[in-house]
Parts: sequence; structure tokens; C-alpha cells
Amino acid sequence: MSDDTSNHPGSTGRTVSREIRLASRPSGWPTEENFEPAEVELPAPAEGRILVRNLYMSVDPYMRGRMNEGESYMPPFEVGKALDGGAIGQVVESRAPGLAAGDLVLHGYGWREYAVMDARQARKIEEILGVPISAYLGVLGMPGLTAYVGLLDIAAFKEGDAVFVSGAAGAVGSLVGQIARRKGASRVVGSAGSQEKIAYLTGKLGFDAAFNYKTASVRKQLAQVAPDGIDVYFDNVGGDHLEAALDAFRPYGRTAMCGAISVYNAAEPVPGPSNLFLAVGKRLTLRGFLVGDHYDRMPDMIEEVGAWLRDGKITFEETVVDGLENAPKAFVDMLRGANIGKMVVRLVH
Amino acid sequence: MSDDTSNHPGSTGRTVSREIRLASRPSGWPTEENFEPAEVELPAPAEGRILVRNLYMSVDPYMRGRMNEGESYMPPFEVGKALDGGAIGQVVESRAPGLAAGDLVLHGYGWREYAVMDARQARKIEEILGVPISAYLGVLGMPGLTAYVGLLDIAAFKEGDAVFVSGAAGAVGSLVGQIARRKGASRVVGSAGSQEKIAYLTGKLGFDAAFNYKTASVRKQLAQVAPDGIDVYFDNVGGDHLEAALDAFRPYGRTAMCGAISVYNAAEPVPGPSNLFLAVGKRLTLRGFLVGDHYDRMPDMIEEVGAWLRDGKITFEETVVDGLENAPKAFVDMLRGANIGKMVVRLVH
Repeated sequence: MSDDTSNHPGSTGRTVSREIRLASRPSGWPTEENFEPAEVELPAPAEGRILVRNLYMSVDPYMRGRMNEGESYMPPFEVGKALDGGAIGQVVESRAPGLAAGDLVLHGYGWREYAVMDARQARKIEEILGVPISAYLGVLGMPGLTAYVGLLDIAAFKEGDAVFVSGAAGAVGSLVGQIARRKGASRVVGSAGSQEKIAYLTGKLGFDAAFNYKTASVRKQLAQVAPDGIDVYFDNVGGDHLEAALDAFRPYGRTAMCGAISVYNAAEPVPGPSNLFLAVGKRLTLRGFLVGDHYDRMPDMIEEVGAWLRDGKITFEETVVDGLENAPKAFVDMLRGANIGKMVVRLVH
Repeated sequence: MSDDTSNHPGSTGRTVSREIRLASRPSGWPTEENFEPAEVELPAPAEGRILVRNLYMSVDPYMRGRMNEGESYMPPFEVGKALDGGAIGQVVESRAPGLAAGDLVLHGYGWREYAVMDARQARKIEEILGVPISAYLGVLGMPGLTAYVGLLDIAAFKEGDAVFVSGAAGAVGSLVGQIARRKGASRVVGSAGSQEKIAYLTGKLGFDAAFNYKTASVRKQLAQVAPDGIDVYFDNVGGDHLEAALDAFRPYGRTAMCGAISVYNAAEPVPGPSNLFLAVGKRLTLRGFLVGDHYDRMPDMIEEVGAWLRDGKITFEETVVDGLENAPKAFVDMLRGANIGKMVVRLVH
């Protein structure tokens, strides 16, 4: 390292940053072998740009889709280059108006310790008393907006609806159930992959019922926990869950199709639901969406969900993993369902 | 036959009527063995009721669903009892205000020569100059409304959309394509099951392109005829056609799910589309509907489609089969795709 390179905040020298790169594209479920650490030197920020030190980064299911070549709705990650994704950082050096050293920002350059970016790519965030800032990666961030828009706008939830959510203990699912409860659902049921999660759903989150999709057929278990049927299905997983929901739907039922973990990792095409034709007779609507189309709803979500958070009317969990070097494992574990609530990686502690 | 039984119009005696009954529930594709003729005596109409002699009856794909036990969205047909469905008849005797002998009516008691019904179950229709009255079973009837509502309301067609319709030479499909054309579609393509039908679509009906789904993969052929993708898919068949449409959809594409002939006759569950997850990234909407929910749109449809018909701006075909005894064969042939345009059975000639 030469004399004009420095890692001290506030300097205008070069900054050494560790990052995680995509080493190879996974076939099926990813492993840690698909990732590799690297070290880069970042230049001092030019005019209009900022240097940010990341405090938290997000690992999300959609990232799995980006690891495939051209199969996702977002640009694929490039082999040999750093991954990216939601992160919260602190401004170290700013050459842009409106942002100063010390400010907290939300941006898209995760999977690395430091990032230099155009200041317009960062959004300044404020701490909320009693709420950890990492909430901006979860309940008050992209997952929160996904739950809010998916339930209220895409699935057109209305008071009295019976709601089923899959992946219910995850970052999005846990909020879907609680919003439905707060908005007057007649029944809220969910699925998850462990008894611990089931207990969390029916205990802390106030779901009416929940089941472990690993222990018996989803179709049978959904029929048991929702004997009168469902009006809304919030689909985080696809596959057998969607098939079960199609069976359980009452007339005019609606599915918000949010993700399909069961498909992301499939090496072979997964057959679709064999009962999709039920959509005709039951007049069902299935609608896919990407949260990126709905940022205009962010202020509504932060206002409404933020108020519930402050009043203790909804709760959320995080699974926090420490250290950039553990981000690949955190990502793989999240895909396997090891987390309750939002999975985040803490980079500074 | 006793003296007080008479088959003469206008009498108040009993009327002998032939009818077609469901002899047994088909497994897979139905055959004529699943039907049986019978003869019944009808009483003279009581107060508020009418006696109708049927002139035309309809055979429609949805009837196949009703032949299964409890698997359809309408009450199943009962074994040993007459089938029913759309029919046009002439009032023979009326004991209800507003209807008189000689009036033409549309009603739901097909598959028989005569019917006695509550007058409120019959709708009086007027002949349109140059248009056969059987059109009220097709382009101006339930199939017409299905096409109109499915395209405009369910699939939310808008000017400039590229439209794909399967079963395009059928009663519904042929109208979907023509309405899309009249309403400013950027491209209209269809599939059908014979070269004769393909020629009909691209010739008389003005489709931009059409393909024979029997000669090569639907996926490949759709990609060829709609290289820039599609915005709307009007689904009359399900199965591989829906899968192909999911591939071909542009972002925000919409499917009106109208029927699934490929499913009605399947003895085993048919796997759903393996690419349904594309609905997320492309933000697709799939929506099933039943025309029976949309009778409020009938006046709009008759006004708009009726005007196009009078002005020669749309065309329609009928396949007319003579004789009640041939209705089972007509039905089976229709399911197999033997007809161009609406298949009807003429009972009086």
C-alpha cells in the first residue's frame, strides 16, 4: 500500500475494500463454492459522488435468480465480478450536496465493505427510536414494500378475506400475515419449514394457524387449516403451494405471485400446477409483480407500517450474521430456510 | 297415446318430445355411447309458463365439463336425465304475459324438441335482417359475449396490443380475433387444428398470421408468427398453448382464461405450464372468467357486434348439423375440432 492510499474515514486517498464475487454459476442449489472473496482499491469520490462504508447488507431470494445466466427479470450477476444488492451504510466522504460524512444511506451496493457511487443512487434514511436501522433492509424496506403492495394492490386484499401466505416466517411473509391481520382478515394462515417457525407464526405473529410443509402434503394441510377456503394467496414459493392454493380458493380468489424459491433452484423445469384450469370456474386471478414497479407506494408503506411498529402492533425478527466473509453462507442458509424473519449480514461490529 | 295427447301447436293437450340423455359419464374423450335418446310427454303449460318448440340448439365445449361428476363450475349433468344448454325456439303456447305463440325465444332447454318452462327463463329475440336467428347461439349470444368480455374486460385489451387466440376458428376465437382487429390491435395471430382453418383465419377473418398446432410445437410456431411477442392471450385450450403464451408475453401481458379443452377430456391430471414463474418477472396477469357473471354486458355486445355484422365488418361461420338424433355426434365432433365457427344443431327443417 503506498502512502497516498488510506483506509481512514474522511481521507481523500484510496480505500481498500473487500468484496464477494460470483465465482461460478450454480446449477440447482448454490453452495459457498459459487462465491469468492476479493480485495479492491477504490478511488476517492469524484464530484457528485460519495464514499460509503457499509454497515448492513441484505441477502434475498431474488438474488438466486440473478445468479443464472439471463433467466431472471433483472440483469444477471457477472461471473468474476462483485455481487450487489440492498445495503445500509454510513457516508465517509461526500462530494455531493445534501449528503455529509456520517449520514446513513440506503443503496444498492451490498456484498462489499465500501462503495463509491453517484449520490443520487443513495437515499438518506433516519433512525426511528427503538427500531434498528437494519429495518430499512426489511420491514421498512424492499421486503416491507413487497408485502404491502403484494397484499393490498396486487392481490387486492379486502376486509374479511381469508389469507394464506407461504414462506410465512420470512421477511416478506411475516409482514403479509400481520398486515392482513391489522386490516381485518377473517383468517390468516401460513406455511413454513420448521416447528420453530410454526410456533413463531401462531404465537408472536398472531396467525390463526400454520403448518410445516415438510411434514405432510401442502394440499392436505392447507385444507385442514383453512377448511372454509381462502380468498387471497401470497405466493413466495410456487410449486406445490400454488397447487394447494388453487384447490383451496373460493370463487374470485386472487394470487399475488411474488417469488418462486422452488423454481429458482431447480435444474430442470418444474411442472406447473396441474389444477390451473380451476382458475376458469372459480374466476381466479393470478398476478405476478416486481416490487421495483411500486416505489411510489414506499411513503404510504413507511407511514402505515412505521406507525404500527412504533405502537407495537406489529413485530419483526431479524437473523443477523456477522462478517462479510459469512455472507455467502448466510445467503445459502436463507434459501434453505434457516432464518426467521429478515436475514441480514452485519459488516461492522 | 291417448286422445287428449296432441302434438299440434296451439293445443292444450300433452306434447310428446324427444330428448337426449346422458347415458354414462365419459372417461376422457366422450363418444356417442355416452348419450341415449328418449321420449317424454310434456304437460300443457300452467299459469306463467310457456311451451316452446326448439328450432336450434347449441353444442359447446363447457358441456364436456358438466359431464364429469362435480368437477365443473356448473352443476353436473345427471346420468339418465336430459342434457341442457342454449337453444332457440318458437313459442307454441303461452300462459304468460309478454309472450305469444309464434314469438322467437332464447332459453336454456336445449337437447330436446319441446320444452315447457317459466316464461322468465326465456328471452324474446328479434330477427336481424340478413342474419340467421341461429346467430343468437353464436356471434350474438353466449359465445359472442364470451369473446367480447374476455378480450375487453378480462384481458383488458387496449389499442396497439398484439393478440394471440387459441381455438381461433371456433365460435369464440373467431370473434376474439375480429374484435381485436376492429379495436386496433397491432397484430392478431391464432392457432387452429387444420390447414383449412388456418386459411380461413388469415383469409376471411383477417388474422395477420395463424398456425396449425398439430404440425409442430406451439412454442416454436407462436415465436415465429409473433416474433415481437404478445400482450394478450385469449386461452380457449390450456396446456401447451398457455405455456407458449407465457414464453411469448411481453411485460404486463394478460391472459383471459376461458376454457381448457385440453383439460376437459384428460383422464389424468395435466401438468400445468412449467414456465408459470415467468408471471413474476414479466408482471403477467392470468384471469379466469365465466360468461355467466357478465350478462350485464350483453346489450353493449349486441349493439357493437350487431352494428359490425350489419355493416359487413365482421363475419361468422356456422357449422349446422341437422336432427336432434345427430346432436351427440355434433358435440363430439365439435370437441375434436371438426367445426369452423359455431356448431349448432337444427331441429326443424
